Parts: sequence; structure tokens; C-alpha cells
Amino acid sequence: MSTVDKQLETVRAEIAEEVPPDISISDVKYEGPELVIYTRDPKKFARNGDLIRRLASKLRKRITVRPDPDVLARPEDAEERILEVIPEEAGVTDLEFHPETGEVVIQARKPGVVIGRHGKTLREITQEVGWTPEVVRTPPIESTTVENVRNFLKQEREDRRDILERVGRQIHREPMSDDEYVRVTTLGCCREVGRSAFILSTPDTRILVDCGNKPGATEEQPYLQLPEALGSGASTIDAVVLTHAHLDHAALIPLLFEYGYDGPIYCTEPTRDLMGLLTLDYLDRAADEGRTPPYDSEMVREAIKHAIPLEYGDVTDIAPDVKLTLHDAGHVLGSAISHFHIGDGLYNVAFSGDVQYDDTRLFDGAVNDFPRVETLVLESTYGGRNDYQTDQEDAERKLIDLVTETYDRDGSVLIPTAAVGRAQELMVVLEEAMREGEIPELPVYLDGMIWEATAVHSTYPEFLSDDVRDRIFDEADNPFLADAFEHVEGGDDERESIADGDPCIVLSTTGMLEGGPARSWLEYLGDDADSTLAFVDYQAKGTLGRRIQNGWGEVPVDDGTVDLEMDVQTLDGFSGHADRQGLENFVRTMNPRPDKVLCVHGDESASQDLSSGLYHEFNMRTFAPQNMETFRFI
Amino acid sequence: MSTVDKQLETVRAEIAEEVPPDISISDVKYEGPELVIYTRDPKKFARNGDLIRRLASKLRKRITVRPDPDVLARPEDAEERILEVIPEEAGVTDLEFHPETGEVVIQARKPGVVIGRHGKTLREITQEVGWTPEVVRTPPIESTTVENVRNFLKQEREDRRDILERVGRQIHREPMSDDEYVRVTTLGCCREVGRSAFILSTPDTRILVDCGNKPGATEEQPYLQLPEALGSGASTIDAVVLTHAHLDHAALIPLLFEYGYDGPIYCTEPTRDLMGLLTLDYLDRAADEGRTPPYDSEMVREAIKHAIPLEYGDVTDIAPDVKLTLHDAGHVLGSAISHFHIGDGLYNVAFSGDVQYDDTRLFDGAVNDFPRVETLVLESTYGGRNDYQTDQEDAERKLIDLVTETYDRDGSVLIPTAAVGRAQELMVVLEEAMREGEIPELPVYLDGMIWEATAVHSTYPEFLSDDVRDRIFDEADNPFLADAFEHVEGGDDERESIADGDPCIVLSTTGMLEGGPARSWLEYLGDDADSTLAFVDYQAKGTLGRRIQNGWGEVPVDDGTVDLEMDVQTLDGFSGHADRQGLENFVRTMNPRPDKVLCVHGDESASQDLSSGLYHEFNMRTFAPQNMETFRFI
Repeated sequence: MSTVDKQLETVRAEIAEEVPPDISISDVKYEGPELVIYTRDPKKFARNGDLIRRLASKLRKRITVRPDPDVLARPEDAEERILEVIPEEAGVTDLEFHPETGEVVIQARKPGVVIGRHGKTLREITQEVGWTPEVVRTPPIESTTVENVRNFLKQEREDRRDILERVGRQIHREPMSDDEYVRVTTLGCCREVGRSAFILSTPDTRILVDCGNKPGATEEQPYLQLPEALGSGASTIDAVVLTHAHLDHAALIPLLFEYGYDGPIYCTEPTRDLMGLLTLDYLDRAADEGRTPPYDSEMVREAIKHAIPLEYGDVTDIAPDVKLTLHDAGHVLGSAISHFHIGDGLYNVAFSGDVQYDDTRLFDGAVNDFPRVETLVLESTYGGRNDYQTDQEDAERKLIDLVTETYDRDGSVLIPTAAVGRAQELMVVLEEAMREGEIPELPVYLDGMIWEATAVHSTYPEFLSDDVRDRIFDEADNPFLADAFEHVEGGDDERESIADGDPCIVLSTTGMLEGGPARSWLEYLGDDADSTLAFVDYQAKGTLGRRIQNGWGEVPVDDGTVDLEMDVQTLDGFSGHADRQGLENFVRTMNPRPDKVLCVHGDESASQDLSSGLYHEFNMRTFAPQNMETFRFI
Repeated sequence: MSTVDKQLETVRAEIAEEVPPDISISDVKYEGPELVIYTRDPKKFARNGDLIRRLASKLRKRITVRPDPDVLARPEDAEERILEVIPEEAGVTDLEFHPETGEVVIQARKPGVVIGRHGKTLREITQEVGWTPEVVRTPPIESTTVENVRNFLKQEREDRRDILERVGRQIHREPMSDDEYVRVTTLGCCREVGRSAFILSTPDTRILVDCGNKPGATEEQPYLQLPEALGSGASTIDAVVLTHAHLDHAALIPLLFEYGYDGPIYCTEPTRDLMGLLTLDYLDRAADEGRTPPYDSEMVREAIKHAIPLEYGDVTDIAPDVKLTLHDAGHVLGSAISHFHIGDGLYNVAFSGDVQYDDTRLFDGAVNDFPRVETLVLESTYGGRNDYQTDQEDAERKLIDLVTETYDRDGSVLIPTAAVGRAQELMVVLEEAMREGEIPELPVYLDGMIWEATAVHSTYPEFLSDDVRDRIFDEADNPFLADAFEHVEGGDDERESIADGDPCIVLSTTGMLEGGPARSWLEYLGDDADSTLAFVDYQAKGTLGRRIQNGWGEVPVDDGTVDLEMDVQTLDGFSGHADRQGLENFVRTMNPRPDKVLCVHGDESASQDLSSGLYHEFNMRTFAPQNMETFRFI
């Protein structure tokens, strides 16, 4: 008998002790980090309101109860009863029955109403029909991404259950080694921005944290070929954790499956969906530009199929000796600080991913309160000694002034920006400014993938700031649905006619003017001296955006060049990254304060400045690692 | 055509340009680091005295010329002519013909005479008979080890040539990567003494430096199972370099072959032979103590077969991007500082192995003069802030006094010591003291493997200090052949009768009284208050030696215990290791001084003390690594 089966025997015995004798337990198995209990008495189980919580606390596991397939009400009958139990206002849009597992997926406009107070309505559903309900939100703005991911996962449900069962057995295997150590190997993003990738290793477990690309003339990948990375076989990696969906952290996650990886990807649910959106777009752009993409779209689907979504704050077993907890990082939708608890109280390492410590319109500032943490791996994008940014209030003021002045000149405002992140932040700011009469009511055109990314944001209001979340819950008040926002769906003809029309605001990808529809907008608006070009994203060296910031007047477009007559402005307070002050504040108020900090994900000088600054300020051991180094902590 | 074959084509063309048209070149191939040129005109080649040197300098390779088998004189005829050419005084003891390669191995008491001034006699031999001579020394003291190694290599000659050819092609392959980095991974001996092992890695090459054990209650091995070590397959290692034969550096070299390693072991010739002697003894002791040895003696033979002996100072290609040079480390016979030149002027790393910077009786102090060196990996055995040792002159004085006083009491002196190292040093000191009348002429009994290890020393006088070397060359003056030395060949009966007899000196293994015949000597001499027990080796924690130093009076022997009445003394000036002062001197006078020093092979406090001391004294970057870390240098 394998060590997992022995362990399950014990678990079964413990369940039997706790469960009343009239409730039968027909099977107990692991699916990913969850323990699934099958019963022939799902209704009685549901009536015993406290039972699942008691079991979870006793076994220290996340527990799901499922009915044995042959005790289920027929789907047709069940559907009717379920719709009777759920209040009308929940806005159920779809019911999907999975007889193999006894689950029913309920899609609704207001998932909270389906769940009920403390899960009361859900329990009622099971008491009535035996089925185990799972609730998802109907996207308030139709989202192709969310729809595609959900349909794909529905279609792959059986395959996915096999994966989860395999992962579950891996997680709950007996540790093999008596040795104790914790190490971090840097595979990328050290003394540079881009290609985030780390290996966290213990005697029993190897975890890859992030796997991004580094954009540039020749795209650079992290050092995956090292023997301590995937060189010794992709199957030597037990788990992958993804901090957020931006390409410099996620672009090469699908590549892992091309290399033979077949394990879980832990991330938040929005990160999973945005990873799908952004990596598919990454493949499209590679094709458009005549480059050979490193993998095909089939691998993106594999990544989605292997994703195990976690919620902020849930402590999850991901290996025999590692528990993972994701915490809000405040950077973009679903971004997570990944906290690893290793061994039984042995050591704790937190990877910041990208963080914004201050609250923004869209997100709460990053969490920096942990039960324990000895080592922090911290981003340093703005870690340089002079990397202080305008605060958001001033930046918003500047934006309002800029829009007003441009409007007064009868001009339009073009804001190139990445689809995921600043675009939605600006939408919230502009919507409020219009509502409060601080700027005139102009149409705001959303181009590129901004509309689609916004739809994904609306699907996951729980990941947004309280204010925006509450407004989305109240459908009429959803800021993203304000009348001003218009989705550009046509091609260059539509753009040209908008540009020729009345004053407006355009938010368009890409953020650094490297390709994307923003280049077309430049063609139509570029020679208009009354209009304004406003940068809100970081403009990397060598990009067209940076060159324009530096004074370039001739901009290449499809047919030749345009003499840039627009007023060029830079608004630097809308960053998704903490600036130097924010990074210091993050560490200063961190609870507990770590012993060691590895400063990564910044140019060489930024990482070294931050490392030296934190050392002098807090007298902790700090490092500015290079790529391909291994640090041992215990 | 493979990249090696293409490269050989070019080499052939360059040879053809240089060689006169009347000398035919029938084949050119690599054997290990050497380029072997086959010719049908070996005699003409030999007559062209300067030709080989010119080719070596043009091609920047080590060159061997061999005759085509079918132009050779018959061995019987050749033997006669060879013996006519070589002067009688050379003392030829054996001739061994290898028709497959046209080589004749000449074993002689005085190899220098066989070689002649600048190789004149060797060239004469080839001119006369066409065969390529290779000269080895007839051991002045019969050595089973040397004889066994030579016989084994003779028998495996063909197999060995295949290995060398394969290794040669590996070394001269085209580099595959455009990337540039140099890294060192620590697999053992960090913040501890024992289990030396490092990986030196570049994008093209991975080299294992040393592979020792850590003796103790449960023997600890270096972290070979890590993916960046052998975890990704032993064949991912391109080469192994062995700094010296002591078990904490060499014990697990044969294990590599059990794991599937099939590449070269670079070391000096005496290191190869001593590794054979010490690892076979290691297996015997394991068997005696009822432990399962990690490999069997077949693997020791594999290691010897794969050894490629290098001479001090020879710059040798061992990979497309790595040149290795061994330098005298002054620690034990054949010990070498291993200097790696990486890339074409890219970077240089030197591993000290164990070093003694001061001259001793037996060895010149370590070399610390290099063309370039940016990083030094330095041992720290005596790196602690108080690790200063008596200088050798005082230690010798103390030994002489101790012997004299014991003799005056009519007692004997028992000196437990390791077979390789201090034993031979003491022999030289005692021989001189007797010759100069400073101590009475007592018999000195050599027990355990000391006699055999001494025979190996005598076989390689070129590796000893000038003084001892010259005395060995002059057979009558060989200090190891002095009348006083007697080899204990019988068992405990002989020991008991010696102990019961007249005063004497006994040198016996093991050095820390952990097993070995020294324990029997304790049984026979232990209760004699007139006798002296003198420690010269480092006594590790937990060993019987250390306990006796700390005052233990009851010593366990085969039948019960002995009340220890002997006078216990410690003489600390005979170390093969530089003390703290010696390590600082080594770095201070090092030319050039390195940028970085990794302090390894010392207890935690010794390594950290040395690291901090060197940093403050020389303002260089210093580290006290932990095991399983990776440092990147470029």
C-alpha cells in the first residue's frame, strides 16, 4: 500500500469517528489540495450544518462533500427544485449538471444570493436535491475570455479530475528525506526587469515561482535549461506558482507543458483567466510579427487545465512539506504575494511578485502581515535611490487638467496603455471626474484588448477595492458600464472617423507604442497640435514611447511617417508598482519583519540601491542576487 | 561531419604545412588532452629535433608522435638496440612493447638517464627503432600499490585508449552556447571539515572538483543527488578534478562510476596511486566494521582507468572552454591547487584543495603565483582567529626532547598517525636526528599502511622537496631506506614482542586511534608509565584520540580496557595545513591577488573568521558559503 493510501486509511478512520452513524461514507480521496468525501446521504450531511467545518478543522484539510451518483435526483427534477430554492434576484443564468461527481455549477449575476448567509442557501439546495452546488458569477460585461475558459474547463472536466487526483496524491505523499534545507535559485529577473522565475527547493520538493519572458529585440527566456531548473526534466518540478498574469511573469508558463511538465499551476482565478488572454495575444503578436512563438495555443489550454485557483488567505498544502498562501499584492487583478510555509514550522519565504503598497482606485494596497516570514523576495522596479513617484491624487489632478485643457483647445487625448492594469484605473478616475463634473462628458474609446480585460475585471469584483466592488455589485452603478465608455470594434476606418470627429479620449494598447492599435491612433491624431499624447505606463529603453518622450518628432506609421505635433505629457503617479518609498514602507510595517531580503526584478542599480537602503535602514541581511545563483536559508 | 572532425581536418592541414614533405602523416587523433600524430617515418620525425616543439607551439596542444605499427622494428630486435642506446647506469628493470600504438614502456631506476639531456636519449631510441618510448621509475622501495596500478593499466591499455579517444573528442568539441557565465556550486565541506565537493559550471561545461566523505558515526556524503550535481545524470558531468588523495577529498570518486560516470579524473600521478591505496583500504575497513561500503573495488579500478595524470604547471585543455593547471599545494604527496582558466581570457578560478604554505621537510610550500585568478576557493581548516601553530623547528625540537626523555626512562614512543602525510615527515626528521646524534639510534617500527605509503613517496621523488628528492636519487642516501626503519609485517604477536623488548619508536595508523593497529599498540604499551603517547595529527571531536587528549584514563581494547599510564603529549607543528597565519600569508603574497575568496573546508567559526579576516585585511569580497549554494562570478 502506498504511503498516500495508508494516510487516507487514517483519514477515513478519523472521519468515521466524527460523522454520525446514519451518514454513510462511500469514498474518500484527494483532488488537488482538497479532500473529497463521497456519501450516499448528502442531504443528511447538509442538514448537519456544522459537520464539514468540524471535519476541516479536525483534519486540517479543505473538504468537499459529494453525493454518490446513484442517490441523485434526476437533473430535470433537480433543476426545478434548485430554481425554487434560489431567490429570483440572484439572476441565475445557467445550470450545468455533472453526474459523474454529483456537482451542479450555478452561474448567476449575484453569486452571493445563491450562497446565502454563511452558505445557508447552498446547504438547502443539497438538502433538497443531493447535488453539490458550485457557484460562479455571470460576467456583468460579456467576456469572451471568461466564457472560453469556462467552456473549455467544462469540456475537459473529466481529464481535469484525473489531473487533480494525481496532484492530490503527490501533495499528500510521505516526505522521503530526513534532511532539512530551504533554497531559492534565481532563474531570471535579477538585476534586470523581465523573465521572472525562481526555484524554491527543499529535500522533498521543487517549486517554480513564475515563468515570464523578457521582451526586447531578441526575447530572452529565464534559465530554464539549468540542471537545477528544468534541465533535469520538467517532471522534477512538483508545482508552479504564478504571482500574476503579466507576460514578464507568465508568458512562458504554457512552455512548461511543451517541456513535459504535467503538474499544477497555483494562482488566483482572475490570474488564470488573464494568463489565457495575455498569452494567446502574445502568440498572435508573435505570428503577426513573423516570429516563431515558443509554443502553440494548445499549451495555453494545458496551462488553464492544470490551474488550481486559490483564494487570498487560504492556506493550502501544495507538497508534503510546503503550504502556500496567496495574499493580495495590489498590483493588478489577481496579483498575489506568494507565502510559503516550509516543514512543520521550519521556515517561511514570501515572494512579493510585483507589489503596490498604497491603495489605488482599483485595488487595496499589498498585504504585509504574515504569521511568520524569515525571507522576503522583493521586487525593486522602482527601488533606485531617486525612484519617487507623484502621489495618485496629484496624478489624477494632472490628468483632469490635461483633459480639460485639451478639450478647451478642441483636441483629443490619446493614452497608450497596457490592457490589464492602468487602463481600468484610468476608467474609474475618468468616470468619476465626469460624474462629478470635473471634466466634460466626452466619449472614452477603449481599443485593443482593454474592453475584454475590463470585462474580466468585472467578473471578479471580490478582487477589487471595496468601493469598486460594491459599485459592481450594484449593477446600475458599475463604473465600467458608464455611458462614456465605447468599445472600438471596427478597424482603422472606425478609428479614422473617430479621430476626425468631436473631441474624445482614447485608451489604446500597447502601453509603450510597440505595435498595437495605438500606432494607428498616432497616424490619425499625431499631426493635430490641439491633441495630447499622455503616457501613464513605464516606457522601457528602446521603445517608441521612450523615444517620443525624449523628443522624437517623426513617428513611423504604416505608410511612412507622421510629424508629431501633439502635446506630449507624462503622468507618473498611476503605477501598479510601489515606488522606493512604498517599498521601504512595505518592509518597515511588515509584520513580522523578515531576517533576509532578496532584492530582485529591478535594473542592477535599482536592486543594489534597494538592497543597500534596506540594510542600512533596518539592519537586515539583504542581497541583490544575480541570475543563476542559489541561496540557502536553512 | 562532427565539429571535432572538422576541427581535426584543420589541424591536419596545419601539421602538413609545418612537417617536411618527406615525413608522412598517416593519422591525427585526440587521446584525452593530447594530439596524437601517427607517422610512417618516426625515425625522420625524431631526427627533426625541434619539430614536435614547433608543432606544439603552433597548435597550442600537447603532442605525441607514434609510429605506424607496420614500420616498427620487431620487439626482440628493438629491445636489444634500446638497451644498447640507454646507458647502463639508468638501471632498466623492464621493457614493455605495445605494438598497437608503437609505444615501449621503459621502467628504470633512474628515468632521468633514460630521457637524457633535453630528451636526447629518447629521440635516439626512436631514431634507432621507430618505437615511441615512455619512461617510468622503478620504485626504489617495492610498492604493491604502484605495481598493481601499473599492471592493471597495462592490462587495460586498449580499453583505456578508447576512453582517452572519447574524452579527447569531448574536450575538442565545438562550444554550443553563446552565453557566458561561471558558477561554483558547493556540495560539501562548507562550514565543516570533510566531504569536499564542488561543481564548477559554464554554459558548456560542468566539472566536479573533489568528491570526499565525511567520517563520523554515520558517514555523510556530499550532496551529489542535487539536480545541479549528479541528480540530472552522472553523464552531465564533463570532468572530475581531484586535488589530492585524502579520503575527505577522494573517498567517493569511485562511487561516481557506480552512478554511471564514464569520464576523466584529472589529478597528479601520485594522487592516482594513493587514491587507489586509500580507497581500497577504506573498503576493507568498512567490511571489517560490518558496514556496507558505498561501492566495490571494481569501481576503484574504474577510477584508476579513467585517471589522466597531469604534471604541475602543465596547462591542459579539459573542455572546449576550460583549461586546467595543477600547482603544488604542499599538503601531501601529489596534492594540487587546481587552477581553471575559463573561456578565452574570460575568468579564472583556483581551488586550493588543502594547502600548506610553508616549506616542510617533505614538500615545498604551496604555489601562489598564477597568470590570472579572480576567485580563490580556499580551505579554512585552521582559519579560526586563534588557530596559530608551533613552527616546525620548535615542533622538531620538542619531538627530539620527548624521544630522548622517554628513552632515558627506558620507555618507548607511540605516535599514531595517518599513513599518507605526517608519517613520512616524521621519518625524515627522525632519520636526521639519529644521523646527527640528537637522539639515540632506536628502531622505528612502521605499522599499518605507512610502509606502503612511504614506498609510493619514494616512487615520485619529483613531487618532494629538493632535498629529499636529491637524496632519493642517490640511492645510498634515501632517508626512507635508513636502517632504523622496520616494517611491521606480522600480527599482534610481533607487536607484543616489540612492546616487551627494548625502547623503540612506533608510527602506526590510524591517526585518531579510530581502529587500525595503533589500538593494538595501546593495548601493549598503554599501561607503561615510562612510555609516551604523542599525537601529531588533528584529533577530531568524538574520536578516541580526542578523548585521550581530554584526559580519559581507561582505553577500550580488544579484551576489555587498559588503564592508560603513558605520558600523553601533543605536538602541533607538523601539520600539512597552513595555519591562520599561513593562510593569510598565502593570500597576501598571492600574485595576482584575487577579487573574491570563498572560505570553505573549515568549521563554521573557522570559515567565518577567515572570511571576515581576509575582508578586513585585504578589502576583497569574501564569503563563508553554506553547502548547496551557487555563486555566480560572471
